[in-house]
Amino acid sequence: MTASLSPIVSIAPEIVASARLTVETAGAGFTEVTREVARFIAEARAKDGVLLAFIRHTSASLVIQENADPDVRTDLATALDRLAPADAGWVHDVEGPDDMPAHVKTMLTGVGLHVPVIEGALALGTWQGIYVCEHRAKAHRREIVLQFIGSRR
Amino acid sequence: MTASLSPIVSIAPEIVASARLTVETAGAGFTEVTREVARFIAEARAKDGVLLAFIRHTSASLVIQENADPDVRTDLATALDRLAPADAGWVHDVEGPDDMPAHVKTMLTGVGLHVPVIEGALALGTWQGIYVCEHRAKAHRREIVLQFIGSRR
Amino acid sequence: MTASLSPIVSIAPEIVASARLTVETAGAGFTEVTREVARFIAEARAKDGVLLAFIRHTSASLVIQENADPDVRTDLATALDRLAPADAGWVHDVEGPDDMPAHVKTMLTGVGLHVPVIEGALALGTWQGIYVCEHRAKAHRREIVLQFIGSRR
Repeated sequence: MTASLSPIVSIAPEIVASARLTVETAGAGFTEVTREVARFIAEARAKDGVLLAFIRHTSASLVIQENADPDVRTDLATALDRLAPADAGWVHDVEGPDDMPAHVKTMLTGVGLHVPVIEGALALGTWQGIYVCEHRAKAHRREIVLQFIGSRR
Repeated sequence: MTASLSPIVSIAPEIVASARLTVETAGAGFTEVTREVARFIAEARAKDGVLLAFIRHTSASLVIQENADPDVRTDLATALDRLAPADAGWVHDVEGPDDMPAHVKTMLTGVGLHVPVIEGALALGTWQGIYVCEHRAKAHRREIVLQFIGSRR
Repeated sequence: MTASLSPIVSIAPEIVASARLTVETAGAGFTEVTREVARFIAEARAKDGVLLAFIRHTSASLVIQENADPDVRTDLATALDRLAPADAGWVHDVEGPDDMPAHVKTMLTGVGLHVPVIEGALALGTWQGIYVCEHRAKAHRREIVLQFIGSRR
């Protein structure tokens, strides 16, 4: 393996900024929130540090994925449907056939993520976007806690 | 999509607090540790910031999931058994038929997580609990490193 | 359940250190980067805090897994191939049959992770190593952002 490490940039942490982002999903599928997260970073006057996001639910998750071809999100949703099918004979079915698959999909994809912030911008890769994944069939209001730890512009 | 961002609250980071939580699991299944993590937050006199948890193992993981109906955890375990069955013909089988499935389940669910801390409390959703997922059949002692970055009460 | 919490160690956060680690993968499989991450911790003069790693791609991921028997990584890759087979009839296939499975595997295993740093060392478990998981068939150059938040030696 060939690996190389760039020079290290060190700054003093000055703030922990926190806000709540509320997103209305349109039912099962991916809702991009990259622009909203970037707005938080701008309004918090974040410079260098880490952005953390946490979704306060057990049937919706946060994922960083391809932001170019929408077919990718269609296929990602199909993949999750295959991994957690509605007709798998779940014990917990009182909240409808889409509820237990939604919990499994949330467990597999996760409720938290972080993105480095460098020179005031999210250090996402060219093809990366931040998405709320709604795993229930119907539209839901979802709450995300955004936080930034680092230096201030 | 409709999205709204709350006002931002900014504080100065004052501490990084660290402790080790040791949990004796009862064998395969979910052990809730939300109360133990809340006790760490209280004893560290954490106010606003981020709680991080990291489990130092490759056959047990950390998951945030539904804390109401125990049937949900039963179904989550069943889902993981289907995704990583014991009889899949694993190359690595010297540590028993439950070992390699345990590694796969750990890879899929993850060894680290974070939870925002607001006004001295874990900002979990109403139905969210923090769980150690034991993926080996037998009882194990598991070590978790808890950390808090933020301001102090 | 039996659980015990160690005494809490609190320090003042002094730095957020950031660097970019570039890794040339050899095609599909696991590339260990534990040594490179430890080198970053040493060069940043990190003492107590948190190491965060983020990979800027949607078809490669970061995983903490067993570092002893290489058969484990073979089986982990096989498990991922079963969960996201190349011949599943993906809609998105313009970038080759290994592209969409790579996105699914990345979603399931994640692009970010954290490891506690205690007394200047990564607090990994005995059997834990940090790996870049290449999910495309061919070799790729992958960029990882390493960050440390905490106190300085």
